[in-house]
Amino acid sequence: MPRTSLAPSPRSRVKRTPEKARYDAATLHAILDACPVVHVGYVIDGAPFVTPTLAWRVADRIYWHGAAASRMLRSLDGAAVCLTATLTDALVLARSAFEHSANYRSVMVMGHATLTTDPKAKAAQLERFVELHWPGRWAALRPMTVQELKATSVLSMPLDEASAKVSTGMASEAKGDETWPVWSGIIPLTQTTGAPLADPAARPADMPAHVRDYVFGRITR
Amino acid sequence: MPRTSLAPSPRSRVKRTPEKARYDAATLHAILDACPVVHVGYVIDGAPFVTPTLAWRVADRIYWHGAAASRMLRSLDGAAVCLTATLTDALVLARSAFEHSANYRSVMVMGHATLTTDPKAKAAQLERFVELHWPGRWAALRPMTVQELKATSVLSMPLDEASAKVSTGMASEAKGDETWPVWSGIIPLTQTTGAPLADPAARPADMPAHVRDYVFGRITR
Repeated sequence: MPRTSLAPSPRSRVKRTPEKARYDAATLHAILDACPVVHVGYVIDGAPFVTPTLAWRVADRIYWHGAAASRMLRSLDGAAVCLTATLTDALVLARSAFEHSANYRSVMVMGHATLTTDPKAKAAQLERFVELHWPGRWAALRPMTVQELKATSVLSMPLDEASAKVSTGMASEAKGDETWPVWSGIIPLTQTTGAPLADPAARPADMPAHVRDYVFGRITR
Repeated sequence: MPRTSLAPSPRSRVKRTPEKARYDAATLHAILDACPVVHVGYVIDGAPFVTPTLAWRVADRIYWHGAAASRMLRSLDGAAVCLTATLTDALVLARSAFEHSANYRSVMVMGHATLTTDPKAKAAQLERFVELHWPGRWAALRPMTVQELKATSVLSMPLDEASAKVSTGMASEAKGDETWPVWSGIIPLTQTTGAPLADPAARPADMPAHVRDYVFGRITR
């Protein structure tokens, strides 16, 4: 049963602009679901690393995967991780430089990563990832081999220690700036999905609905 | 004089899929210029944090800013940082789950952050940020106050230890998969700039060219 709210820990509580903070599961889940490209932060020899990767959510956990041989994947089992998902919705142009900002929805998840070791569980998690984005595709693919499954690592982390920040609307202008004669407003930004391009080297195949209707960041549960 | 190539250090050398690695300044600069929203990774009490922020490049340095009071900004002067910029260009659908991937352009910059302490230098860096995106806007804004400048921190880092990864094209299929009967190809993704929306509470002002012609990720040098 998914929780409906997450109590922030001292470090996951939003300090700056706390009025933008959200801790309810519905908001966190919606942002993570809409943002499949995330940035995973980890520490090696005291130095930070930030790797972009694809991630997917199942209930109260966030999952990501990669080559079992990669630096990130090898370093992360049991290690401290910060996973951040960010959607930039607009640039906000105010009448002072200081009040310029962005509208965004972001989630920061802190915790320790767990490697999935059971091959069956790992295969099921990878299937879930494909099916969330492209329902029906997994069964149509050439089946995964034992070797491919071995070469792939899946990591996950609970959403226990997570917070969202949501910034919307027009700029809040400094007092006295209301009549300064410069254009102010927002420039909206959207991640747009283009028309799919079939591999010209592939045997022609009809474009399935799961490709034709795909919209980046819209998944099916 | 900007360098034309950056020799990778042991940790900035790309290990996975080294054929996608780029170390030339032109490629690094182009990706950073096209990707103003970056993710900054840092370490507090041994734990990683990843914060999204706006960044801008001047010659061989990458700059970012924020509230002087913020956790990130206070923690970072002289500290180890990894700044990652990622543009996702397409999802790549292969005939096996294993060969599914994304096309992307990313840059990872490692190093130590430096806080700009001189107020004049800081003001000039903030002006540069605004002018790179919206030429002519700085002079039209209500001038920045001493207090606003104090409340803003600017950090920067050289591009000395940086690498890019660029992934393009169709999937490389596993041998034997060439005739598997499933649609394969790519789904292109683009960050789209919408029509600017004037603040309805603002005194009407003509939309200047720097707003009308703005395209996210296209800057003017």
